[in-house]
Amino acid sequence: MINTVAIQGIRGSFHHIVSQEFFSEPVDIIECMTFDRVVEALINQECDAAIMALENSIAGSIIPNYALIDDYQLHIVGEHYLDIQHNLMALPNQNIEDIKEVYSHPMALLQCKDFFKDYPNIKLVEDKDTAEVAERINAKGLKNIGAIASVLAADIFNLDILAHSIQTIKHNETRFAVVKRTNSEVPENEINKASIKFEADHKRGSLATILNVMSDCKLNLTKIQSLPIIKTPWKYAFFVDVTFEAYADFLKAKSIIEIMGQNFKLLGEYKNAKI
Amino acid sequence: MINTVAIQGIRGSFHHIVSQEFFSEPVDIIECMTFDRVVEALINQECDAAIMALENSIAGSIIPNYALIDDYQLHIVGEHYLDIQHNLMALPNQNIEDIKEVYSHPMALLQCKDFFKDYPNIKLVEDKDTAEVAERINAKGLKNIGAIASVLAADIFNLDILAHSIQTIKHNETRFAVVKRTNSEVPENEINKASIKFEADHKRGSLATILNVMSDCKLNLTKIQSLPIIKTPWKYAFFVDVTFEAYADFLKAKSIIEIMGQNFKLLGEYKNAKI
Repeated sequence: MINTVAIQGIRGSFHHIVSQEFFSEPVDIIECMTFDRVVEALINQECDAAIMALENSIAGSIIPNYALIDDYQLHIVGEHYLDIQHNLMALPNQNIEDIKEVYSHPMALLQCKDFFKDYPNIKLVEDKDTAEVAERINAKGLKNIGAIASVLAADIFNLDILAHSIQTIKHNETRFAVVKRTNSEVPENEINKASIKFEADHKRGSLATILNVMSDCKLNLTKIQSLPIIKTPWKYAFFVDVTFEAYADFLKAKSIIEIMGQNFKLLGEYKNAKI
Repeated sequence: MINTVAIQGIRGSFHHIVSQEFFSEPVDIIECMTFDRVVEALINQECDAAIMALENSIAGSIIPNYALIDDYQLHIVGEHYLDIQHNLMALPNQNIEDIKEVYSHPMALLQCKDFFKDYPNIKLVEDKDTAEVAERINAKGLKNIGAIASVLAADIFNLDILAHSIQTIKHNETRFAVVKRTNSEVPENEINKASIKFEADHKRGSLATILNVMSDCKLNLTKIQSLPIIKTPWKYAFFVDVTFEAYADFLKAKSIIEIMGQNFKLLGEYKNAKI
């Protein structure tokens, strides 16, 4: 039973939306300003689960979050996809021509910069969080200031949306992981996806050999990401996601890769959320 | 002959250091505040080459820069590795206890946040660029303000370094690409590394098959990164770097992958800079 979930950001953030959509029952949230704090809340048992963005279709993997899951021995127990839509919002009864400055997260500003080329008088300013700016505009009654945030944020903080979906790339799908301290709760018959990590050197064929095992065991690869191991030149860690029809097939592949690869680690096994 | 190089950032930035170390002759630089501007300068023939960070050992690939190289049909003609060292600097004749605020790039602040736990009175503020803050402190004579930047920046802008190498992870190796508009200048006998891109679907074995070709052709894989193709579910683009001893081996692999993979693209072939 999940009662409390740690999220990155505040109410109205994209992580908040995920917490609403993923769980079947309403959950309380712990608002965290950093992913480090999200993990701390989980480790300290302040919450039952945490939500962390893992990758998006524009910028790729969020490696520091993979590192947090890896370093703190957390377990991915589920995934959720969200199409990130950025909206320009401000206090009611203003037009876009009234807006002098827009504050938001650097990534949101980057994704929306083309939209603002038509509004050269608007100054773009980097801020910590998308939804937090919306909250501040509301709390302090800041006129002539815009936020870039979710529809939920506009709703919670009583702002009017001046322009919908202002990001340049209209579909920016972001994948979120639901993580827990233990790996005990996903029923075996629901598991059809897994995230694993293993190491291999750069010698020719070492990765190909492991991928051949996966292929022989009927696993489909949905993601692969190599990362150099900082202290060991020419050695690489691979973060790999696979999907499968039969859990037994995955167990078989896992037992072989545990022998062939080095430092094999199961980051999580869960239900594939991609339709 | 390279006379002018576009860099991200200003004098004293890490890209500036790369421009000094990579080329055997001194080059003029064009200071660009964004990577988009770097590419624009190259496309518009304002410069002969451009330098772009591609990945670092902490955060992984800088996917938007791969996308720029891909989208604008640029060619990687060389690579350079730099161990990023962050230093706290300020106007001369101050102690660290005099510093009230430190401005820097969000990534630099993130990498140095542990250092500042011992200095809770210092406020950390996000800024555009590491070196630009150093320049501003110098130009405006800003007391009690610190910058986090390179030794070169301290040197150019006459600041004193109050603490060296303040980043948490002591070795943060960053890989930079030297890119040009054309691919004509690396002598064949110097080429022992290549960056390629191809597409494959998630069906089992499709990537393994291509990696087997690479292995059969004696290529070593030094990097692999999958990226979902936004408009085509279950299809992936792979950015792969390989090293090899004989250029003929690479040509052979290339000709096979061109047939087996989809939308094969050579992003560049160049000299491996990793010792």
